[in-house]
Amino acid sequence: MAGSGRFFEDFIVGDVIRHATPRTVTVGDVAMYQGLYGDRFVVQSSDAFARRIGYPRSPVSDLITFHVVFGKTVPDVSLNAFANLGYAAGKFLLPVYPGDTLVSTSEVIGVRPTSKGDAGVVWVRTRGVRSDGASVLDYVRWVLVRMQGGRPVQETVVPELPSVVDPSELGAACPRIETSAWDDAEAGSTRRFDDYEVGEKIDHVDGMTVEEAEHQLATRLWQNTAKVHFDGFAQKSSKIGRRLVYGGHVISLARGLSFNGLENAFHVAGINGGRHVAPIHAGDTLYAWSEILDKQPIPGRDDVGALRVRMTGVKDFSTAGFPRTGEDGKDHPNVVLDLDLWLLLPR
Amino acid sequence: MAGSGRFFEDFIVGDVIRHATPRTVTVGDVAMYQGLYGDRFVVQSSDAFARRIGYPRSPVSDLITFHVVFGKTVPDVSLNAFANLGYAAGKFLLPVYPGDTLVSTSEVIGVRPTSKGDAGVVWVRTRGVRSDGASVLDYVRWVLVRMQGGRPVQETVVPELPSVVDPSELGAACPRIETSAWDDAEAGSTRRFDDYEVGEKIDHVDGMTVEEAEHQLATRLWQNTAKVHFDGFAQKSSKIGRRLVYGGHVISLARGLSFNGLENAFHVAGINGGRHVAPIHAGDTLYAWSEILDKQPIPGRDDVGALRVRMTGVKDFSTAGFPRTGEDGKDHPNVVLDLDLWLLLPR
Amino acid sequence: MAGSGRFFEDFIVGDVIRHATPRTVTVGDVAMYQGLYGDRFVVQSSDAFARRIGYPRSPVSDLITFHVVFGKTVPDVSLNAFANLGYAAGKFLLPVYPGDTLVSTSEVIGVRPTSKGDAGVVWVRTRGVRSDGASVLDYVRWVLVRMQGGRPVQETVVPELPSVVDPSELGAACPRIETSAWDDAEAGSTRRFDDYEVGEKIDHVDGMTVEEAEHQLATRLWQNTAKVHFDGFAQKSSKIGRRLVYGGHVISLARGLSFNGLENAFHVAGINGGRHVAPIHAGDTLYAWSEILDKQPIPGRDDVGALRVRMTGVKDFSTAGFPRTGEDGKDHPNVVLDLDLWLLLPR
Repeated sequence: MAGSGRFFEDFIVGDVIRHATPRTVTVGDVAMYQGLYGDRFVVQSSDAFARRIGYPRSPVSDLITFHVVFGKTVPDVSLNAFANLGYAAGKFLLPVYPGDTLVSTSEVIGVRPTSKGDAGVVWVRTRGVRSDGASVLDYVRWVLVRMQGGRPVQETVVPELPSVVDPSELGAACPRIETSAWDDAEAGSTRRFDDYEVGEKIDHVDGMTVEEAEHQLATRLWQNTAKVHFDGFAQKSSKIGRRLVYGGHVISLARGLSFNGLENAFHVAGINGGRHVAPIHAGDTLYAWSEILDKQPIPGRDDVGALRVRMTGVKDFSTAGFPRTGEDGKDHPNVVLDLDLWLLLPR
Repeated sequence: MAGSGRFFEDFIVGDVIRHATPRTVTVGDVAMYQGLYGDRFVVQSSDAFARRIGYPRSPVSDLITFHVVFGKTVPDVSLNAFANLGYAAGKFLLPVYPGDTLVSTSEVIGVRPTSKGDAGVVWVRTRGVRSDGASVLDYVRWVLVRMQGGRPVQETVVPELPSVVDPSELGAACPRIETSAWDDAEAGSTRRFDDYEVGEKIDHVDGMTVEEAEHQLATRLWQNTAKVHFDGFAQKSSKIGRRLVYGGHVISLARGLSFNGLENAFHVAGINGGRHVAPIHAGDTLYAWSEILDKQPIPGRDDVGALRVRMTGVKDFSTAGFPRTGEDGKDHPNVVLDLDLWLLLPR
Repeated sequence: MAGSGRFFEDFIVGDVIRHATPRTVTVGDVAMYQGLYGDRFVVQSSDAFARRIGYPRSPVSDLITFHVVFGKTVPDVSLNAFANLGYAAGKFLLPVYPGDTLVSTSEVIGVRPTSKGDAGVVWVRTRGVRSDGASVLDYVRWVLVRMQGGRPVQETVVPELPSVVDPSELGAACPRIETSAWDDAEAGSTRRFDDYEVGEKIDHVDGMTVEEAEHQLATRLWQNTAKVHFDGFAQKSSKIGRRLVYGGHVISLARGLSFNGLENAFHVAGINGGRHVAPIHAGDTLYAWSEILDKQPIPGRDDVGALRVRMTGVKDFSTAGFPRTGEDGKDHPNVVLDLDLWLLLPR
């Protein structure tokens, strides 16, 4: 039935799913994104700044690209998912501008039934493609999908995934920039690539309380149809009793907060890994902190360098102490997001 | 006094009211609409798709046109209305694109005082007009308007209204489309006009919980000023005790939900009739189902055909059983919307 | 630390602060503004109307300009403010159109420690500048800023501020308009400049209940980062126990409501003064009324005249009796906003 989605048994390794509803991104989306997340990264905010450093105009936030590409996959991939387990091998391949139309395809690259036998893990490699055929984003995610039951189950295939995206693959989505035209005062900080140190921890200080109307607006904006985000009536009879916030909403909130301390990290270039450690709900307040895991030049580029940043989202708890692991060695009970990104900064 | 609206006695059959505030529709409105309703109909979502089938770019959702045209009438027609009783004879006459400026006029075509004598029914034919004078939408609605009292009352005039819009009038707002360029995978379904059957019932499956912030954003977006939607303080002393959701918000939510099963029904071409059966409030979850009442070719067109669809909006109740009438033969207590539309699909 | 803001001791008279994050204004912002405030002023709503009277297209609402310029100052000026005390000498200097990029600078023009010694008043003159260097807005505000303590304190400097902006400075942001092309029916009223009288009081009638999601969307849209608007978790341990609504949100709501009775007051030309008399919170309903304090021609202009309007925002209380002062001679307990504006109207 339309709207009922695929079950675990429907995923065959090697199948490529063309997802519905190509979508033209516009300055309207940019304004909605701004209202939802309050971003202050200058390249995406100012056409004038973007032109001075070498863009034809402001590209949209990399996470707009991510949400648009991701949203399309939901009706086909995760409508019957219990959980969104992880991300890997994410690479932004081209800047996206207002007026570009994006569509997504997903290739099934792995399946593994759980031992309990009522669900299985499905790995898909999703590609976001512009209407002229150029790829703009490529990433792998894996989800725990319900089994329908009474049907044959695929043999287990577990894909090999890189633990980190190679820095040589990070420059594609960013044109060569004119660093001498980069105005630190406008950008909000004098700290550039060379000023960060591996091991450094950054408290992003601010917090943002989530409202039902906000995460619903966000999730619909990206044509993400997962029922758990919208159907408060059905959720009343779920274990959790209420609507869940789309994980991508949390990612964008954390990215917005991270401006405090990562002002010049203007481009999300890669997603090495990521986990939604715990759900968040309306009324929760999100904080975030980051740890610099690595810093690497981009081969052939002297204009930008890449910081590998582990960004931690925390709810209803101060980030001053950089919480991540609890006393029991497991995830800290207030941690909701653990995201491993490559961010580009001017040198 | 400015902002106090017309009373029943102020409506004279034959009068034409030019409504205030022409409004330029933009991609900003399209993004807001997307965030509010999560639409996935491909022609309105993708400029690239729209161009391939013969549009110059994506037209805006037909319901954006409806809301903009309708909103302007509120300060003049329904500010003192107890209820929005019905719609008929609605025809979309031209596609509307970002950049078009719309304004509305309403002709009073009927008045009938109620027996109780404190109110009366007013019928208006509203026309949405582009700034170059071309009509984009034409519909009749009738509302129950408060009497001011102590003033002469018009003689009753009840207009004759068609029970259904003639299919020959439905093609105007849709250019000839290139059906061979219609990509079913992008559109989300292989079911085209010929694949639906009269009598078929479609459960749209998903539900959407309404928040105060959402319906307020929507209603203000269309410059609809009806107090009952916004003034929670005054509503506390009303019979219902709280804000009412704008009926058009419910229509757009139902239309958005109807993508599940009506993926290729890309164009709302006519409104044969419609009733807001019961109000909805923040916190209610809307579901929808549709019944195919009729299917007709469009004279002179082999590219598109029209499905007559009765769309039923239901709150806090499953649509799996297609609820419409209760055990007592009256409206089912959870039904909130009963809308009779012509929808165009590719053949 | 990034995101921790300046303290009273950091403000040195004569210093000019270049604020971060220039921002390109778009039709997306216009749509968000429309959804948030429901404005009906015709010049900002209709490109067609704007062109007929002499604009190249619709300018954005003057308050969009204000919010964008103001928002940038928050991280540098008022992150550690206890209160936003007042505005003066505000002049709109050029119309702003979608596509324009704005940035702000603030000059510190006064400082005065409080007698208690834990805070001080800081006066700044903020200038909004387009990317080509042209000024679009100039205003003074003063805030009560926390002292960090243990540091030397500046000598008191209190700037002289005009009690009213001179009418000769009001025409700049409005091109010469073709009043014969001004269509009163489209604008919503036949009352023009000459039809208002000094001393006249206008009840704006309608009310608008504020939601958390709405003021958060608004405040983030303008990149205003004041914590008190967003961080519900931290606010729980504040004296007030909850999030505060951004004062600018209240100004825009009042301006939107003021259409009832000030339909043709299409341009906010000057801000003579203003006070946020009391905070508002989600759930409060805002009403507004206005008093005409003065009316003046604009030197050299026969197309528009300026009304000096004192706009009063009131929460959860009828404006029918024009509340401003309580029985004790102090501010009426329900008054939240007291704003003294110059508004332009066609003659």
